[in-house]
Amino acid sequence: MNTSPLAQAFPELPAIEGVTLRVARARYKEWDRCDLTFAELAPGTSVAGVTTQSRCPSPEVEWCRKALVLGQARALVVNAGNSNAFTGDRGRAAVEAIAARAAGHLGCQPSDVFVASTGVIGVPLPIDKAEAGLDAAFTAQPCDWRAATDAIGTTDTFPKAAVTRAIVDGKTITLVGIIKGSGMIAPDMATMLGFVFTDAAIEPAYLQRALTAANEASFSRITVDSDTSTSDTVLAFATGAAGNATITADEDAGADAFRAALSDLCLQLAHLVVRDGEGATKFIQVDVQGAESDRSAHRIAMSIANSPLVKTAIAGGDANWGRVVMAVGKAGEPAERDRLAIRFGATQVARDGLAVPDYDEAPVAKHLRGQEIEIGVDIGLGDGRATAWTCDLTHGYISINADYRS
Amino acid sequence: MNTSPLAQAFPELPAIEGVTLRVARARYKEWDRCDLTFAELAPGTSVAGVTTQSRCPSPEVEWCRKALVLGQARALVVNAGNSNAFTGDRGRAAVEAIAARAAGHLGCQPSDVFVASTGVIGVPLPIDKAEAGLDAAFTAQPCDWRAATDAIGTTDTFPKAAVTRAIVDGKTITLVGIIKGSGMIAPDMATMLGFVFTDAAIEPAYLQRALTAANEASFSRITVDSDTSTSDTVLAFATGAAGNATITADEDAGADAFRAALSDLCLQLAHLVVRDGEGATKFIQVDVQGAESDRSAHRIAMSIANSPLVKTAIAGGDANWGRVVMAVGKAGEPAERDRLAIRFGATQVARDGLAVPDYDEAPVAKHLRGQEIEIGVDIGLGDGRATAWTCDLTHGYISINADYRS
Repeated sequence: MNTSPLAQAFPELPAIEGVTLRVARARYKEWDRCDLTFAELAPGTSVAGVTTQSRCPSPEVEWCRKALVLGQARALVVNAGNSNAFTGDRGRAAVEAIAARAAGHLGCQPSDVFVASTGVIGVPLPIDKAEAGLDAAFTAQPCDWRAATDAIGTTDTFPKAAVTRAIVDGKTITLVGIIKGSGMIAPDMATMLGFVFTDAAIEPAYLQRALTAANEASFSRITVDSDTSTSDTVLAFATGAAGNATITADEDAGADAFRAALSDLCLQLAHLVVRDGEGATKFIQVDVQGAESDRSAHRIAMSIANSPLVKTAIAGGDANWGRVVMAVGKAGEPAERDRLAIRFGATQVARDGLAVPDYDEAPVAKHLRGQEIEIGVDIGLGDGRATAWTCDLTHGYISINADYRS
Repeated sequence: MNTSPLAQAFPELPAIEGVTLRVARARYKEWDRCDLTFAELAPGTSVAGVTTQSRCPSPEVEWCRKALVLGQARALVVNAGNSNAFTGDRGRAAVEAIAARAAGHLGCQPSDVFVASTGVIGVPLPIDKAEAGLDAAFTAQPCDWRAATDAIGTTDTFPKAAVTRAIVDGKTITLVGIIKGSGMIAPDMATMLGFVFTDAAIEPAYLQRALTAANEASFSRITVDSDTSTSDTVLAFATGAAGNATITADEDAGADAFRAALSDLCLQLAHLVVRDGEGATKFIQVDVQGAESDRSAHRIAMSIANSPLVKTAIAGGDANWGRVVMAVGKAGEPAERDRLAIRFGATQVARDGLAVPDYDEAPVAKHLRGQEIEIGVDIGLGDGRATAWTCDLTHGYISINADYRS
């Protein structure tokens, strides 16, 4: 697979105290690469998470949901190459076996072990390979973020990670996130597999609130192909090693700074997934304002971002704003044709229900030749606004998905 | 444009008494073909219609909605090459001018004239071209169904029409339908432009009820690319020339037969649109049963039919039933993974939440090499059922839409 033309360089990432990473070859597929990631977390680590809204979630997702109630984590295990989704009792047994094996090594409860898997749907995760891989990981040397990020990827064409910092209670805290995902991306409350690690001390319930809010403004605003995965999971782990007074509420010192840093990190990670969208050649930002509510604006933005006709027009560098009108119209949200305004980049192309007088397509065509595309829509009815991000729809998407058994 | 590999031969179509067709060159685009169709209807013709659910409908759609209230029609004018959508007051003026011109020729009210347009969005329909085209049509020799079907098409790769008959009140009545559409197809209560003509005598309100019901089971069950047009319109005209006692209610003689014939015709027309889906190489039927309700089954079926990953898998002949699970899960309807069963063609591939024992992919692979694909899903919860129809998603769709200014 060629690297996405929208790829970004892997950033310099600092260690997070309380987090130890190891990878191993479980050989879930016939490949010569690490495909099992094991993150050991210091005792006392808080955890929060958001998972797919799919009605057919993987057993890993169900396991994480139950474990999240307790708010404590000692380990994260990620399997790449097999999502273990839609595998019935055998899939559930595989997750339980992995959690038990990891808990036995660490001397913790199985419910302290979080498990996520990604890859083909419908094939039970082989327990023997998982256990052998875990055993290998326990004895392996610790690795860096890059090795862990490589090990969680599947059809990803570049490794995706981000870092932010904040001052909390006089201490510098650090957040590092790693993420994988390229197709089957329309998270609607979560994304493929994303993991955030911080050394801040955060009470689990507060970490959950902060993650839920960050997710709403990041992973829930991206789409590659409108197809929501069975396995979407984002987990956030806070080891507390930074030594700040534990954050438990908005009023606490540094709570604002932490929330802002977490939101920034999640948005960076979400954008990286779009930049690795299957077949993507352009990164598209859709800004909607003037809707009746923020929720309405969000639905309109996603209707545009999911439209195959809008996405193929952008792929072809075609300033086809009629397709944007179509996508606004099909969203089912309040809109009045005669108040609608549309821009590409900085150029207004339509206003008050028709093309602007003396519309000059040249600056729009130039904007569309770039890699970073902006579509702006003003509904003209109220104050609701929202932004969504997507990529274009190209021959590359067809080539990847008409052949690949995901 | 190459003819769709799923194309069907144009059928033998009889004349419908009370319907006179004429076509002309309005030259809405730089092409050498007829692009204006004028159907004159005998006095006393009943009319019914269904139109797009888009919140940004074309002025033609708004015009038809108003005129439908009166239930009478004397003419239909169809413009191809320019949809006149999102063109503000100038677009409305064009529709009014066309209706006035046709009404002047026929000595009827403008509200007896129905207008539909298809093509590029955002460019006002040039009134001078429309009027000159209409004038040419008035003096042209009457033409046959084939010429009219050709004249309403845009990106269609083959002309699409169908015929049915029924015995009503001792008389043989005939229904003929013509339709155009290939992309921007996700009608959700109507489709691109479809026109049904019958010589039966039907009271307008009853014709509307029959058309609404037929639409629910046909045009509302197809999708090419999930993009709902601004201009979707289906109109049905009943001239009454067959001489049956006018049908006004379900209890009337022949009402059942008429409804069945109309439903059959609409389904034939809907299938033809899917067979001309942009880039289509396979015709896909999605059968869902066991859902909590028919409505729930419909939503699940459309979620599968709209999934890019399901459609690319079929394009590649890949029996990737995991993507069907994904599409069931993202529909947001009640579903339990451990009760789900899936088949391709006649072969069961998954049952009770996992692959069937000793699953043999050979017969499935053979089925997927054909042009007529069946996906069957049993949700296992209730009695709700629904069927949807779509086509595969191929490089052809990308090629057509990354270049064509629709």
